Amino acid sequence: MNAPADRPPLPKALAEALASRFGARFSVAAAVCLHHGKDESSYTPMPPDAVVFAESTAEVAEIVGLCHSHRTPVIAFGTGTSLEGHLLAVRGGVSIDLSALNQIIALRQEDLDATVQCGVTRKTLNAALNGTGLFFPIDPGADASLGGMAATRASGTNAVRYGTMRENVLGMTVVLPDGRILKTGGRARKSSAGYDLTRLMVGSEGTLGIITELTVRLYPIPEAISSAVCAFPSVAAAVRTVIQTIQLGVPVARIELLDTLMIAAINRHSKTSLREGPTLFFEFHGSPTGVKEQAETVQETAAEHGGQDFEWATRPEDRTRLWQARHDAYYAGIGLKPGCRALTTDACVPISQLADCIAETYLDLEASGLIAPLVGHVGDGNFHMVLLVDPDDDEEFARAKGFASRLAQRAIRMDGTCTGEHGVGIGKQAYMTLEHGDVAIDVMRALKRAIDPDNIMNPGKILPPP
Amino acid sequence: MNAPADRPPLPKALAEALASRFGARFSVAAAVCLHHGKDESSYTPMPPDAVVFAESTAEVAEIVGLCHSHRTPVIAFGTGTSLEGHLLAVRGGVSIDLSALNQIIALRQEDLDATVQCGVTRKTLNAALNGTGLFFPIDPGADASLGGMAATRASGTNAVRYGTMRENVLGMTVVLPDGRILKTGGRARKSSAGYDLTRLMVGSEGTLGIITELTVRLYPIPEAISSAVCAFPSVAAAVRTVIQTIQLGVPVARIELLDTLMIAAINRHSKTSLREGPTLFFEFHGSPTGVKEQAETVQETAAEHGGQDFEWATRPEDRTRLWQARHDAYYAGIGLKPGCRALTTDACVPISQLADCIAETYLDLEASGLIAPLVGHVGDGNFHMVLLVDPDDDEEFARAKGFASRLAQRAIRMDGTCTGEHGVGIGKQAYMTLEHGDVAIDVMRALKRAIDPDNIMNPGKILPPP
Repeated sequence: MNAPADRPPLPKALAEALASRFGARFSVAAAVCLHHGKDESSYTPMPPDAVVFAESTAEVAEIVGLCHSHRTPVIAFGTGTSLEGHLLAVRGGVSIDLSALNQIIALRQEDLDATVQCGVTRKTLNAALNGTGLFFPIDPGADASLGGMAATRASGTNAVRYGTMRENVLGMTVVLPDGRILKTGGRARKSSAGYDLTRLMVGSEGTLGIITELTVRLYPIPEAISSAVCAFPSVAAAVRTVIQTIQLGVPVARIELLDTLMIAAINRHSKTSLREGPTLFFEFHGSPTGVKEQAETVQETAAEHGGQDFEWATRPEDRTRLWQARHDAYYAGIGLKPGCRALTTDACVPISQLADCIAETYLDLEASGLIAPLVGHVGDGNFHMVLLVDPDDDEEFARAKGFASRLAQRAIRMDGTCTGEHGVGIGKQAYMTLEHGDVAIDVMRALKRAIDPDNIMNPGKILPPP
Repeated sequence: MNAPADRPPLPKALAEALASRFGARFSVAAAVCLHHGKDESSYTPMPPDAVVFAESTAEVAEIVGLCHSHRTPVIAFGTGTSLEGHLLAVRGGVSIDLSALNQIIALRQEDLDATVQCGVTRKTLNAALNGTGLFFPIDPGADASLGGMAATRASGTNAVRYGTMRENVLGMTVVLPDGRILKTGGRARKSSAGYDLTRLMVGSEGTLGIITELTVRLYPIPEAISSAVCAFPSVAAAVRTVIQTIQLGVPVARIELLDTLMIAAINRHSKTSLREGPTLFFEFHGSPTGVKEQAETVQETAAEHGGQDFEWATRPEDRTRLWQARHDAYYAGIGLKPGCRALTTDACVPISQLADCIAETYLDLEASGLIAPLVGHVGDGNFHMVLLVDPDDDEEFARAKGFASRLAQRAIRMDGTCTGEHGVGIGKQAYMTLEHGDVAIDVMRALKRAIDPDNIMNPGKILPPP
């Protein structure tokens, strides 16, 4: 399934240098390498030649510097939860495990920011914020590391209100391909001081450097939170409700779309009794009266579009039950086809195109004879089809790949992107030129060459083969 | 005051080619060149050798292509309202006047976005949005062009709620230094598809390319808007009020700080009778009850910190009078010293540092014997000292420059930036290395070389001399 690897062996002198410097924290054990050569995608793992468990920025710089002197590839490893083959060692090399860089360096309540090491996960950060009245909102589903989330420009259910990693990283420490340590950005909320190196590194997937520390924005925990769920006669009616809600200026925190099949899967998996139709899940953040007002506006809007069984949840236990069901959607979906593996798409289009994009996608799905429940961050125009594929059926897998490829191209044709939040990795490389055009790809290559002239940082990712 | 120019004459062949192609839209007239060689800063103008009035992206590409073949500098000109000498032709060359690129290409109400040519000003865009229920919030004071605002990463009074140009540009058309046309970004609200070329171009001040079109985010006009004004016993008390307001999660749209001297100037200039003390101006956006609730919360918070004469304005005419007074602050300040010219600083620090930064700045101001009222976008930690200087007094000007330099360094020392929203131009070059460090400056230089190897795009700006 993967292209044949172009991988020279690990230079002996490098292996010896790393072994002597890092002792038991250097490993070439097959199991360790295998674990670091895969992610949560459907790609066949491609293990690195060695793994080093780093414990500080200085150590990362030292490892990268050693690899640089041998022109050996380096791949950063956070929690292994990426979805597009980001971690596969397509040209071999050294994986740097960053999970021990797990210190929260500073929480600054007055400034609503925190500086953390890259291995801190979003749940760890939020646990550390307990009692401060603040939280970190970006929630990509998995308990990913913040470094990895920055590297893939992750987002999730809260992005419609709080933005993505692009908007929420203020500054970084990055180890460059030659082992130098770069500081980007700062702690000012805004700055016009030169080229935006922070945003260049966000979404660069370890191909320009390794993020070892980052300063992120925090937000006050809203005084009141309420949730609602509502079924619609069609996906189009649900999408019209979302468009109107946003145009009315309702500052909704989450709007998630689940299709009929996904709701059926959830009812089965989570023992809920949701009406089985295209459904929106909402969450409102604000003052108690503000939240009530938001929910009422949305209820009226939903009713205009045929929404049925609008159900509120203000008690924390009801909200938790509702959002647990939403968060379990992926596993609920997989439960529809026991023994299957999932291939997840990530199209994101302007919201005016969303209903059409989903309608065309359903026609294609039917013609393809595949099963794929839908879940989407519909406020951003982003939706995922969870393709359920028999791992032993190569023909079905090929059909699913064809469907995903057409969906990626459809999203691009509709002025959108083939990847709203999962990143490119190796999975979306084939669409980069179609999405960005030759000139933009040339500029991206020029940037890559300028910063990583030897192409040692996570080589073979993002940019299509020349 | 400026460094001696390193400017070869305009190549004759280039002048002939531009003249024959653009006719009357090509000019070497001294008055035209002078107009295009200055901005609103206190720098002595440095005119380009020629000006071409372009009317389309294709024409800009043609002009840049011609200049590229002669290795001649190119400077983009929007409305001439920049504040750091961005437009000065320090190495001569050709200025491209973009004011005729003033078409609104598309307004998309469902998607809350608009695509415009770079010469469209923010007021023109908002006028075109009349009746749609949408608005474009970024307001840097001047009626600047959107291309220029993107190029300097501008913001203004609304940034605390709506972000800066960094957050509000979705995609661009950019003419590269070799005349190729680059498309960046797209219309999806979010994307993880490769390097963020949009954010690289935002804030690049014409040194990497010329922005000719851009797609920006729009927002629903809030159902209700109200304003408030409140005087405090000290700047520190006002800042503590702001910090607490933000920590309480009040989604305030504007929080502006004006000091006692500035309020006195406004009272004189705008015939207002505001209490003369450090003062906060607030604006609240939301539903009628939401806005009322926000104002009440802020009023209570202000009272805890000694705020006096908390005054509300909900009627449009009262709000307009209040904000007109705020917007006239610059001219009111200048009125304090007839015949003076103004030198404006742009420090931005983490808000926890703001009161200290201002206190140190006041001590320095007193020791320097200068007059400078203060106005600040205090929700972002950004404040401007408007230094009032006698244009015929070189010694006073030098003292003002020294004060501004110490303030820039103070902001950097406090984890902030020397420029929150005005950009670097030539005015802040001297602080780039202090703010970013050698490694970051090296990376910025590498990016500049990768995209503009002949250094023809607005040369001599942003990066300090090597």
